[in-house]
Amino acid sequence: MEKRELLYEGKAKRVYRTDDPESLIVSYKDDATAFNGLKKGRIAGKGAVNNQMSNRLMRYLEENGVPTHFIAELNERETLVKRVSVIPLEVIVRNIAAGSFSKRYGVEEGVVLDCPTFEFSYKNDALGDPLLNTSHALALNLAAPEELTVIRTLALRVNELLRTFWAGCGITLVDFKLEFGRLRNGSIVLADEISPDTCRLWDSGTQEKLDKDRFRQDLGRVEEAYAEVMRRMTEHDA
Amino acid sequence: MEKRELLYEGKAKRVYRTDDPESLIVSYKDDATAFNGLKKGRIAGKGAVNNQMSNRLMRYLEENGVPTHFIAELNERETLVKRVSVIPLEVIVRNIAAGSFSKRYGVEEGVVLDCPTFEFSYKNDALGDPLLNTSHALALNLAAPEELTVIRTLALRVNELLRTFWAGCGITLVDFKLEFGRLRNGSIVLADEISPDTCRLWDSGTQEKLDKDRFRQDLGRVEEAYAEVMRRMTEHDA
Ligand SMILES: Nc1ncnc2c1ncn2[C@@H]1O[C@H](COP(=O)(O)OP(=O)(O)O)[C@@H](O)[C@H]1O
Ligand SMILES: Nc1ncnc2c1ncn2[C@@H]1O[C@H](COP(=O)(O)OP(=O)(O)O)[C@@H](O)[C@H]1O
Ligand SMILES: [Mg+2]
Ligand SMILES: [Mg+2]
Repeated sequence: MEKRELLYEGKAKRVYRTDDPESLIVSYKDDATAFNGLKKGRIAGKGAVNNQMSNRLMRYLEENGVPTHFIAELNERETLVKRVSVIPLEVIVRNIAAGSFSKRYGVEEGVVLDCPTFEFSYKNDALGDPLLNTSHALALNLAAPEELTVIRTLALRVNELLRTFWAGCGITLVDFKLEFGRLRNGSIVLADEISPDTCRLWDSGTQEKLDKDRFRQDLGRVEEAYAEVMRRMTEHDA
Repeated sequence: MEKRELLYEGKAKRVYRTDDPESLIVSYKDDATAFNGLKKGRIAGKGAVNNQMSNRLMRYLEENGVPTHFIAELNERETLVKRVSVIPLEVIVRNIAAGSFSKRYGVEEGVVLDCPTFEFSYKNDALGDPLLNTSHALALNLAAPEELTVIRTLALRVNELLRTFWAGCGITLVDFKLEFGRLRNGSIVLADEISPDTCRLWDSGTQEKLDKDRFRQDLGRVEEAYAEVMRRMTEHDA
Protein backbone atom coordinates (compact mmCIF):
# COMPACT_ATOMS: atom_id res chain seq x y z
CA MET A 1 0.00 0.00 0.00
CA GLU A 2 1.61 3.26 -1.11
CA LYS A 3 1.65 6.38 1.06
CA ARG A 4 0.25 9.36 -0.86
CA GLU A 5 -0.27 12.99 0.16
CA LEU A 6 -0.83 14.26 3.69
CA LEU A 7 -4.56 14.53 4.27
CA TYR A 8 -4.59 15.99 7.76
CA GLU A 9 -2.09 16.80 10.46
CA GLY A 10 -3.49 16.65 13.99
CA LYS A 11 -1.90 17.30 17.34
CA ALA A 12 -0.54 13.75 17.72
CA LYS A 13 -0.72 12.09 14.31
CA ARG A 14 -0.42 12.68 10.58
CA VAL A 15 -2.95 11.05 8.30
CA TYR A 16 -2.01 10.17 4.69
CA ARG A 17 -4.00 8.99 1.71
CA THR A 18 -3.05 5.69 0.09
CA ASP A 19 -3.78 4.28 -3.37
CA ASP A 20 -6.95 2.74 -1.88
CA PRO A 21 -9.59 5.44 -1.28
CA GLU A 22 -10.98 3.42 1.65
CA SER A 23 -7.65 3.12 3.52
CA LEU A 24 -5.41 5.67 5.22
CA ILE A 25 -1.97 5.58 6.78
CA VAL A 26 -1.73 7.05 10.26
CA SER A 27 1.72 8.18 11.39
CA TYR A 28 2.23 8.80 15.13
CA LYS A 29 4.31 11.82 16.23
CA ASP A 30 6.23 12.40 19.46
CA ASP A 31 4.48 15.79 19.84
CA ALA A 32 2.46 16.21 23.00
CA THR A 33 -0.16 18.85 23.75
CA ALA A 34 -2.45 19.44 26.69
CA PHE A 35 -5.12 21.89 27.87
CA ASN A 36 -6.62 22.26 24.41
CA GLY A 37 -3.21 22.91 22.83
CA LEU A 38 -2.06 25.57 25.33
CA LYS A 39 0.77 23.37 26.60
CA LYS A 40 3.12 21.92 24.01
CA GLY A 41 6.07 19.55 24.22
CA ARG A 42 7.68 16.35 22.97
CA ILE A 43 7.80 12.94 24.57
CA ALA A 44 10.65 10.97 22.96
CA GLY A 45 9.47 7.58 21.73
CA LYS A 46 5.78 8.34 22.36
CA GLY A 47 4.79 7.91 18.70
CA ALA A 48 6.18 4.39 18.56
CA VAL A 49 4.65 3.38 21.91
CA ASN A 50 1.22 4.78 21.06
CA ASN A 51 1.17 3.22 17.61
CA GLN A 52 2.09 -0.26 18.80
CA MET A 53 -0.04 -0.14 21.91
CA SER A 54 -3.07 1.13 20.06
CA ASN A 55 -2.71 -1.62 17.45
CA ARG A 56 -2.28 -4.32 20.07
CA LEU A 57 -5.46 -3.14 21.84
CA MET A 58 -7.48 -2.73 18.65
CA ARG A 59 -6.62 -6.32 17.69
CA TYR A 60 -7.72 -7.51 21.12
CA LEU A 61 -10.99 -5.58 20.87
CA GLU A 62 -11.65 -6.97 17.36
CA GLU A 63 -11.11 -10.51 18.67
CA ASN A 64 -13.77 -9.71 21.26
CA GLY A 65 -16.37 -8.41 18.86
CA VAL A 66 -15.68 -4.66 18.78
CA PRO A 67 -15.31 -3.42 15.18
CA THR A 68 -12.30 -1.12 14.71
CA HIS A 69 -10.51 0.77 11.92
CA PHE A 70 -7.32 -1.33 12.32
CA ILE A 71 -5.96 -3.10 9.22
CA ALA A 72 -2.20 -3.64 9.62
CA GLU A 73 0.85 -2.24 11.36
CA LEU A 74 3.30 -0.97 8.72
CA ASN A 75 6.24 -0.08 10.94
CA GLU A 76 7.05 1.21 14.44
CA ARG A 77 5.12 4.45 13.93
CA GLU A 78 2.77 3.81 11.04
CA THR A 79 -0.44 1.87 10.63
CA LEU A 80 -2.86 1.18 7.82
CA VAL A 81 -6.46 1.86 8.88
CA LYS A 82 -9.90 1.91 7.33
CA ARG A 83 -10.86 5.42 6.38
CA VAL A 84 -13.85 6.65 8.34
CA SER A 85 -15.77 9.85 8.60
CA VAL A 86 -15.03 10.68 12.22
CA ILE A 87 -18.07 11.50 14.39
CA PRO A 88 -17.08 14.73 16.19
CA LEU A 89 -17.63 13.34 19.66
CA GLU A 90 -15.06 12.45 22.29
CA VAL A 91 -16.55 9.43 24.00
CA ILE A 92 -15.32 9.24 27.57
CA VAL A 93 -15.78 6.41 30.08
CA ARG A 94 -14.68 6.80 33.69
CA ASN A 95 -14.18 4.21 36.41
CA ILE A 96 -12.44 6.47 38.93
CA ALA A 97 -12.80 10.24 39.47
CA ALA A 98 -9.96 12.27 37.92
CA GLY A 99 -9.29 15.20 35.61
CA SER A 100 -12.22 17.33 34.45
CA PHE A 101 -14.72 15.12 36.30
CA SER A 102 -13.01 15.78 39.65
CA LYS A 103 -12.71 19.47 38.97
CA ARG A 104 -16.20 19.98 37.57
CA TYR A 105 -18.10 18.06 40.25
CA GLY A 106 -15.81 18.54 43.24
CA VAL A 107 -15.00 14.84 43.64
CA GLU A 108 -11.50 14.03 44.84
CA GLU A 109 -9.23 12.27 42.35
CA GLY A 110 -9.11 8.56 43.10
CA VAL A 111 -12.71 8.11 44.28
CA VAL A 112 -13.96 4.88 42.72
CA LEU A 113 -17.31 5.44 40.97
CA ASP A 114 -20.17 3.06 41.87
CA CYS A 115 -20.63 2.34 38.18
CA PRO A 116 -18.75 3.58 35.10
CA THR A 117 -19.86 6.99 33.84
CA PHE A 118 -20.24 7.68 30.17
CA GLU A 119 -19.99 11.12 28.58
CA PHE A 120 -19.65 12.89 25.27
CA SER A 121 -17.64 15.99 24.52
CA TYR A 122 -18.15 17.90 21.31
CA LYS A 123 -14.82 17.42 19.45
CA ASN A 124 -14.34 21.07 18.56
CA ASP A 125 -11.06 22.75 19.49
CA ALA A 126 -12.43 26.28 18.91
CA LEU A 127 -15.12 25.67 21.55
CA GLY A 128 -12.74 23.83 23.91
CA ASP A 129 -14.35 20.38 23.47
CA PRO A 130 -17.38 21.17 25.66
CA LEU A 131 -19.31 18.45 27.49
CA LEU A 132 -22.66 17.62 25.94
CA ASN A 133 -25.46 15.15 26.45
CA THR A 134 -27.38 12.98 24.00
CA SER A 135 -30.09 15.53 23.32
CA HIS A 136 -27.45 18.20 22.59
CA ALA A 137 -25.62 15.84 20.21
CA LEU A 138 -28.90 15.25 18.37
CA ALA A 139 -29.82 18.96 18.29
CA LEU A 140 -26.38 19.74 16.82
CA ASN A 141 -26.87 16.92 14.28
CA LEU A 142 -23.59 15.27 15.26
CA ALA A 143 -24.96 11.74 14.90
CA ALA A 144 -28.22 9.81 14.52
CA PRO A 145 -30.01 8.44 17.61
CA GLU A 146 -29.22 4.82 16.66
CA GLU A 147 -25.55 5.73 16.18
CA LEU A 148 -25.39 7.19 19.67
CA THR A 149 -26.88 3.99 21.07
CA VAL A 150 -24.34 1.84 19.23
CA ILE A 151 -21.48 4.09 20.39
CA ARG A 152 -22.59 3.89 23.99
CA THR A 153 -22.89 0.12 23.94
CA LEU A 154 -19.49 -0.29 22.25
CA ALA A 155 -17.77 2.16 24.61
CA LEU A 156 -19.01 0.36 27.72
CA ARG A 157 -17.96 -2.98 26.21
CA VAL A 158 -14.51 -1.52 25.43
CA ASN A 159 -14.28 -0.41 29.06
CA GLU A 160 -14.90 -3.94 30.34
CA LEU A 161 -12.41 -5.43 27.89
CA LEU A 162 -9.68 -2.87 28.53
CA ARG A 163 -10.07 -3.10 32.31
CA THR A 164 -9.50 -6.82 32.09
CA PHE A 165 -6.54 -6.43 29.76
CA TRP A 166 -4.82 -3.76 31.86
CA ALA A 167 -5.49 -5.63 35.09
CA GLY A 168 -3.34 -8.41 33.60
CA CYS A 169 -0.51 -5.85 33.34
CA GLY A 170 -0.88 -4.60 36.92
CA ILE A 171 -2.51 -1.40 35.65
CA THR A 172 -5.78 0.21 36.68
CA LEU A 173 -7.84 1.83 33.92
CA VAL A 174 -9.07 5.11 35.44
CA ASP A 175 -10.75 6.65 32.38
CA PHE A 176 -10.29 6.99 28.62
CA LYS A 177 -11.43 8.78 25.48
CA LEU A 178 -12.54 7.05 22.28
CA GLU A 179 -13.47 8.32 18.83
CA PHE A 180 -15.82 6.51 16.50
CA GLY A 181 -16.40 6.90 12.78
CA ARG A 182 -18.60 5.71 9.95
CA LEU A 183 -17.32 3.44 7.19
CA ARG A 184 -18.61 4.12 3.69
CA ASN A 185 -21.44 1.64 4.26
CA GLY A 186 -22.51 3.62 7.33
CA SER A 187 -21.44 1.11 9.95
CA ILE A 188 -19.80 2.43 13.10
CA VAL A 189 -16.24 1.40 14.02
CA LEU A 190 -13.82 2.43 16.72
CA ALA A 191 -11.19 4.77 15.20
CA ASP A 192 -8.34 7.03 16.35
CA GLU A 193 -6.07 5.56 19.08
CA ILE A 194 -5.96 3.94 22.52
CA SER A 195 -2.77 4.91 24.34
CA PRO A 196 -1.39 6.66 27.42
CA ASP A 197 -2.33 9.89 25.60
CA THR A 198 -6.00 8.94 25.68
CA CYS A 199 -6.26 6.74 28.81
CA ARG A 200 -5.47 7.40 32.45
CA LEU A 201 -3.47 4.36 33.60
CA TRP A 202 -2.33 3.92 37.20
CA ASP A 203 -0.01 1.28 38.59
CA SER A 204 -2.40 -1.04 40.45
CA GLY A 205 -0.06 -1.33 43.42
CA THR A 206 1.51 2.11 43.89
CA GLN A 207 -1.17 4.20 42.08
CA GLU A 208 1.70 5.82 40.18
CA LYS A 209 0.47 7.61 37.06
CA LEU A 210 1.67 5.99 33.83
CA ASP A 211 0.02 8.31 31.31
CA LYS A 212 -0.13 11.80 29.84
CA ASP A 213 -0.96 13.31 33.25
CA ARG A 214 2.82 13.09 33.92
CA PHE A 215 3.23 15.59 31.07
CA ARG A 216 0.15 17.71 31.95
CA GLN A 217 1.18 18.00 35.60
CA ASP A 218 4.99 18.15 35.10
CA LEU A 219 5.53 15.02 37.18
CA GLY A 220 8.75 14.06 35.39
CA ARG A 221 9.78 10.62 34.06
CA VAL A 222 7.28 11.00 31.22
CA GLU A 223 9.18 8.96 28.59
CA GLU A 224 9.83 6.32 31.24
CA ALA A 225 6.13 5.96 32.01
CA TYR A 226 5.20 5.40 28.37
CA ALA A 227 8.06 2.88 28.04
CA GLU A 228 6.96 1.13 31.22
CA VAL A 229 3.42 0.63 29.95
CA MET A 230 4.84 -0.74 26.71
CA ARG A 231 7.16 -3.07 28.62
CA ARG A 232 4.32 -4.48 30.71
CA MET A 233 2.21 -5.03 27.65
CA THR A 234 4.99 -6.91 25.88
CA GLU A 235 5.60 -8.98 29.00
CA HIS A 236 1.86 -9.73 29.25
CA ASP A 237 1.96 -11.14 25.72
CA ALA A 238 5.14 -13.18 26.27
CA MET B 1 -51.55 28.32 58.51
CA GLU B 2 -49.12 30.16 60.71
CA LYS B 3 -45.74 31.39 59.44
CA ARG B 4 -42.95 30.17 61.74
CA GLU B 5 -39.18 30.65 61.57
CA LEU B 6 -37.13 31.29 58.45
CA LEU B 7 -35.83 27.96 57.23
CA TYR B 8 -33.74 29.11 54.27
CA GLU B 9 -33.05 32.33 52.44
CA GLY B 10 -32.14 31.86 48.77
CA LYS B 11 -31.27 34.36 46.08
CA ALA B 12 -34.89 35.04 45.10
CA LYS B 13 -37.10 33.68 47.89
CA ARG B 14 -37.35 33.12 51.60
CA VAL B 15 -38.72 29.83 52.85
CA TYR B 16 -40.51 29.61 56.24
CA ARG B 17 -41.71 26.74 58.35
CA THR B 18 -45.40 26.56 59.24
CA ASP B 19 -47.25 24.71 62.01
CA ASP B 20 -47.60 21.80 59.59
CA PRO B 21 -44.26 19.99 59.15
CA GLU B 22 -45.24 19.01 55.59
CA SER B 23 -45.99 22.58 54.42
CA LEU B 24 -43.82 25.63 53.90
CA ILE B 25 -44.45 29.28 53.10
CA VAL B 26 -42.42 30.67 50.22
CA SER B 27 -41.99 34.46 50.13
CA TYR B 28 -40.79 36.00 46.86
CA LYS B 29 -38.24 38.85 47.01
CA ASP B 30 -37.53 41.61 44.50
CA ASP B 31 -33.81 40.72 44.64
CA ALA B 32 -32.26 39.70 41.36
CA THR B 33 -28.95 37.93 40.79
CA ALA B 34 -27.20 36.63 37.69
CA PHE B 35 -23.98 34.90 36.66
CA ASN B 36 -23.96 32.69 39.73
CA GLY B 37 -24.52 35.61 42.10
CA LEU B 38 -21.79 37.88 40.62
CA LYS B 39 -24.32 40.45 39.42
CA LYS B 40 -26.81 41.71 41.99
CA GLY B 41 -29.76 44.09 41.78
CA ARG B 42 -33.45 44.66 42.47
CA ILE B 43 -36.38 44.51 40.12
CA ALA B 44 -39.29 46.40 41.70
CA GLY B 45 -42.45 44.30 41.76
CA LYS B 46 -40.68 41.11 40.62
CA GLY B 47 -41.56 39.17 43.76
CA ALA B 48 -45.28 39.74 43.29
CA VAL B 49 -45.17 38.95 39.57
CA ASN B 50 -43.15 35.77 40.03
CA ASN B 51 -45.31 34.53 42.88
CA GLN B 52 -48.60 35.00 41.07
CA MET B 53 -47.31 33.81 37.72
CA SER B 54 -45.73 30.73 39.18
CA ASN B 55 -48.93 29.85 41.01
CA ARG B 56 -51.07 30.40 37.94
CA LEU B 57 -48.81 28.08 35.94
CA MET B 58 -48.52 25.43 38.64
CA ARG B 59 -52.35 25.28 38.82
CA TYR B 60 -52.51 24.89 35.05
CA LEU B 61 -49.91 22.12 35.13
CA GLU B 62 -51.75 20.31 37.95
CA GLU B 63 -54.97 20.44 35.91
CA ASN B 64 -53.03 18.74 33.14
CA GLY B 65 -51.62 15.93 35.21
CA VAL B 66 -48.27 17.33 36.39
CA PRO B 67 -47.92 16.99 40.19
CA THR B 68 -46.60 20.20 41.81
CA HIS B 69 -45.82 21.56 45.28
CA PHE B 70 -48.53 24.25 45.03
CA ILE B 71 -51.16 24.40 47.78
CA ALA B 72 -52.55 27.95 48.03
CA GLU B 73 -51.64 31.55 47.35
CA LEU B 74 -51.60 33.44 50.65
CA ASN B 75 -51.05 36.97 49.37
CA GLU B 76 -49.32 38.89 46.55
CA ARG B 77 -45.88 37.57 47.47
CA GLU B 78 -46.47 34.48 49.57
CA THR B 79 -47.57 30.95 48.82
CA LEU B 80 -48.16 27.82 50.82
CA VAL B 81 -46.41 24.82 49.26
CA LYS B 82 -45.82 21.17 50.03
CA ARG B 83 -42.46 20.72 51.65
CA VAL B 84 -40.12 18.64 49.49
CA SER B 85 -36.55 17.54 49.67
CA VAL B 86 -35.24 19.32 46.61
CA ILE B 87 -33.26 17.17 44.16
CA PRO B 88 -30.09 19.20 43.48
CA LEU B 89 -30.57 19.29 39.72
CA GLU B 90 -31.52 22.21 37.54
CA VAL B 91 -33.67 20.65 34.86
CA ILE B 92 -33.44 22.68 31.67
CA VAL B 93 -35.50 22.32 28.49
CA ARG B 94 -34.68 24.36 25.39
CA ASN B 95 -36.72 25.01 22.26
CA ILE B 96 -34.51 27.75 20.79
CA ALA B 97 -30.75 28.28 21.19
CA ALA B 98 -29.86 30.99 23.73
CA GLY B 99 -27.73 31.62 26.80
CA SER B 100 -25.20 28.98 27.84
CA PHE B 101 -26.29 26.63 25.03
CA SER B 102 -25.42 29.24 22.38
CA LYS B 103 -22.15 30.10 24.02
CA ARG B 104 -21.05 26.54 24.77
CA TYR B 105 -21.85 25.04 21.37
CA GLY B 106 -21.36 28.06 19.11
CA VAL B 107 -25.00 28.18 17.97
CA GLU B 108 -26.40 31.64 17.32
CA GLU B 109 -29.14 32.81 19.69
CA GLY B 110 -32.54 32.37 18.07
CA VAL B 111 -31.82 29.18 16.11
CA VAL B 112 -34.87 26.95 16.51
CA LEU B 113 -33.83 23.45 17.62
CA ASP B 114 -35.19 20.50 15.60
CA CYS B 115 -36.50 18.99 18.80
CA PRO B 116 -36.42 20.21 22.43
CA THR B 117 -33.17 19.53 24.25
CA PHE B 118 -33.17 18.38 27.82
CA GLU B 119 -30.29 18.88 30.25
CA PHE B 120 -29.35 18.72 33.90
CA SER B 121 -27.08 21.05 35.81
CA TYR B 122 -25.81 20.13 39.23
CA LYS B 123 -27.49 22.72 41.54
CA ASN B 124 -24.32 23.67 43.40
CA ASP B 125 -23.36 27.34 43.62
CA ALA B 126 -19.80 26.60 44.77
CA LEU B 127 -19.16 24.59 41.59
CA GLY B 128 -21.03 27.08 39.37
CA ASP B 129 -23.97 24.77 38.59
CA PRO B 130 -22.03 22.60 36.10
CA LEU B 131 -23.74 20.72 33.29
CA LEU B 132 -23.99 16.98 33.87
CA ASN B 133 -25.52 13.98 32.18
CA THR B 134 -27.58 11.11 33.56
CA SER B 135 -24.61 8.88 34.32
CA HIS B 136 -22.90 11.71 36.22
CA ALA B 137 -26.08 12.37 38.23
CA LEU B 138 -26.18 8.68 39.16
CA ALA B 139 -22.45 8.53 40.00
CA LEU B 140 -22.89 11.56 42.28
CA ASN B 141 -25.94 9.90 43.88
CA LEU B 142 -28.13 12.92 43.18
CA ALA B 143 -31.19 10.81 42.34
CA ALA B 144 -32.28 7.26 41.57
CA PRO B 145 -32.49 6.08 37.93
CA GLU B 146 -36.32 5.85 38.07
CA GLU B 147 -36.47 9.38 39.48
CA LEU B 148 -34.42 10.73 36.58
CA THR B 149 -36.79 9.03 34.16
CA VAL B 150 -39.84 10.54 35.86
CA ILE B 151 -38.21 13.98 35.91
CA ARG B 152 -37.38 13.83 32.23
CA THR B 153 -40.90 12.78 31.27
CA LEU B 154 -42.48 15.48 33.44
CA ALA B 155 -40.12 18.19 32.18
CA LEU B 156 -40.88 17.45 28.52
CA ARG B 157 -44.61 17.40 29.32
CA VAL B 158 -44.26 20.76 31.13
CA ASN B 159 -42.54 22.12 28.02
CA GLU B 160 -45.46 21.15 25.78
CA LEU B 161 -48.01 22.59 28.23
CA LEU B 162 -46.13 25.84 28.82
CA ARG B 163 -45.49 26.39 25.11
CA THR B 164 -49.21 26.15 24.48
CA PHE B 165 -50.05 28.41 27.38
CA TRP B 166 -47.53 31.11 26.43
CA ALA B 167 -48.48 30.93 22.75
CA GLY B 168 -51.95 32.03 23.87
CA CYS B 169 -50.30 35.15 25.35
CA GLY B 170 -48.30 35.96 22.21
CA ILE B 171 -45.14 34.74 23.91
CA THR B 172 -42.55 32.23 22.67
CA LEU B 173 -41.07 29.90 25.29
CA VAL B 174 -37.34 29.78 24.44
CA ASP B 175 -36.09 27.72 27.39
CA PHE B 176 -36.65 27.26 31.11
CA LYS B 177 -35.29 25.72 34.30
CA LEU B 178 -37.29 23.52 36.68
CA GLU B 179 -36.54 22.01 40.07
CA PHE B 180 -38.13 18.83 41.34
CA GLY B 181 -38.36 17.42 44.84
CA ARG B 182 -39.48 14.37 46.79
CA LEU B 183 -42.51 14.42 49.06
CA ARG B 184 -42.23 12.45 52.29
CA ASN B 185 -43.76 9.42 50.55
CA GLY B 186 -41.00 9.60 47.94
CA SER B 187 -43.14 10.77 45.03
CA ILE B 188 -41.65 13.40 42.73
CA VAL B 189 -43.34 16.78 42.32
CA LEU B 190 -42.45 19.98 40.51
CA ALA B 191 -41.20 22.54 43.06
CA ASP B 192 -39.58 25.98 43.12
CA GLU B 193 -40.98 28.52 40.62
CA ILE B 194 -41.84 29.18 36.99
CA SER B 195 -41.36 32.86 36.17
CA PRO B 196 -39.44 35.31 33.97
CA ASP B 197 -36.50 34.60 36.32
CA THR B 198 -36.47 30.94 35.27
CA CYS B 199 -37.85 31.06 31.69
CA ARG B 200 -36.69 32.87 28.56
CA LEU B 201 -39.83 34.45 27.13
CA TRP B 202 -39.81 36.36 23.83
CA ASP B 203 -42.62 38.39 22.31
CA SER B 204 -43.83 36.13 19.48
CA GLY B 205 -44.09 39.04 17.04
CA THR B 206 -41.14 41.34 17.80
CA GLN B 207 -38.85 38.75 19.52
CA GLU B 208 -38.42 41.32 22.30
CA LYS B 209 -37.07 39.72 25.46
CA LEU B 210 -39.55 39.70 28.35
CA ASP B 211 -37.46 37.96 31.00
CA LYS B 212 -34.40 38.12 33.24
CA ASP B 213 -32.08 38.51 30.25
CA ARG B 214 -33.10 42.21 30.31
CA PHE B 215 -31.41 42.36 33.73
CA ARG B 216 -28.47 40.10 32.81
CA GLN B 217 -27.71 42.06 29.65
CA ASP B 218 -28.62 45.56 30.93
CA LEU B 219 -31.30 45.99 28.28
CA GLY B 220 -33.37 48.40 30.38
CA ARG B 221 -37.16 48.34 30.96
CA VAL B 222 -36.75 45.33 33.24
CA GLU B 223 -39.68 46.05 35.59
CA GLU B 224 -41.83 46.82 32.54
CA ALA B 225 -41.05 43.43 30.97
CA TYR B 226 -42.10 41.52 34.09
CA ALA B 227 -45.27 43.64 34.33
CA GLU B 228 -46.01 43.07 30.65
CA VAL B 229 -45.83 39.30 31.00
CA MET B 230 -48.15 39.55 34.03
CA ARG B 231 -50.57 41.77 32.09
CA ARG B 232 -50.74 39.34 29.16
CA MET B 233 -51.34 36.45 31.49
CA THR B 234 -54.19 38.26 33.27
CA GLU B 235 -55.68 39.22 29.90
CA HIS B 236 -55.38 35.58 28.73
CA ASP B 237 -57.47 34.50 31.72
CA ALA B 238 -60.08 37.23 31.31
N1 LIG C 1 -9.74 5.77 10.69
C1 LIG C 1 -9.71 7.09 10.57
N2 LIG C 1 -10.16 7.70 9.44
C2 LIG C 1 -10.14 9.04 9.33
N3 LIG C 1 -9.69 9.88 10.29
C3 LIG C 1 -9.22 9.34 11.43
C4 LIG C 1 -9.21 7.93 11.64
N4 LIG C 1 -8.72 7.69 12.89
C5 LIG C 1 -8.43 8.90 13.43
N5 LIG C 1 -8.74 9.90 12.58
C6 LIG C 1 -8.56 11.34 12.79
O1 LIG C 1 -7.21 11.67 12.57
C7 LIG C 1 -6.95 12.95 13.12
C8 LIG C 1 -5.53 13.04 13.58
O2 LIG C 1 -5.34 12.54 14.88
P1 LIG C 1 -4.81 13.47 16.05
O3 LIG C 1 -3.42 13.95 15.76
O4 LIG C 1 -5.05 12.70 17.30
O5 LIG C 1 -5.80 14.74 15.89
P2 LIG C 1 -6.39 15.77 16.98
O6 LIG C 1 -5.47 16.94 16.97
O7 LIG C 1 -7.77 16.09 16.41
O8 LIG C 1 -6.48 15.03 18.30
C9 LIG C 1 -8.06 13.16 14.18
O9 LIG C 1 -8.93 14.18 13.71
C10 LIG C 1 -8.77 11.82 14.20
O10 LIG C 1 -10.17 12.02 14.48
N1 LIG D 1 -41.53 22.98 47.88
C1 LIG D 1 -40.30 23.23 48.33
N2 LIG D 1 -39.83 22.62 49.46
C2 LIG D 1 -38.57 22.89 49.90
N3 LIG D 1 -37.72 23.72 49.31
C3 LIG D 1 -38.13 24.34 48.18
C4 LIG D 1 -39.42 24.13 47.63
N4 LIG D 1 -39.52 24.86 46.49
C5 LIG D 1 -38.34 25.50 46.33
N5 LIG D 1 -37.49 25.21 47.35
C6 LIG D 1 -36.12 25.70 47.55
O1 LIG D 1 -36.19 26.99 48.10
C7 LIG D 1 -34.93 27.63 47.97
C8 LIG D 1 -35.12 29.13 47.84
O2 LIG D 1 -35.38 29.54 46.52
P1 LIG D 1 -34.39 30.54 45.77
O3 LIG D 1 -34.34 31.85 46.42
O4 LIG D 1 -34.81 30.45 44.32
O5 LIG D 1 -32.98 29.80 46.02
P2 LIG D 1 -31.64 29.71 45.16
O6 LIG D 1 -30.76 30.83 45.61
O7 LIG D 1 -31.11 28.33 45.47
O8 LIG D 1 -32.04 29.83 43.69
C9 LIG D 1 -34.26 26.91 46.80
O9 LIG D 1 -33.16 26.15 47.31
C10 LIG D 1 -35.32 25.95 46.29
O10 LIG D 1 -34.74 24.76 45.79
MG1 LIG E 1 -6.27 13.14 18.91
MG1 LIG F 1 -33.78 29.81 42.67
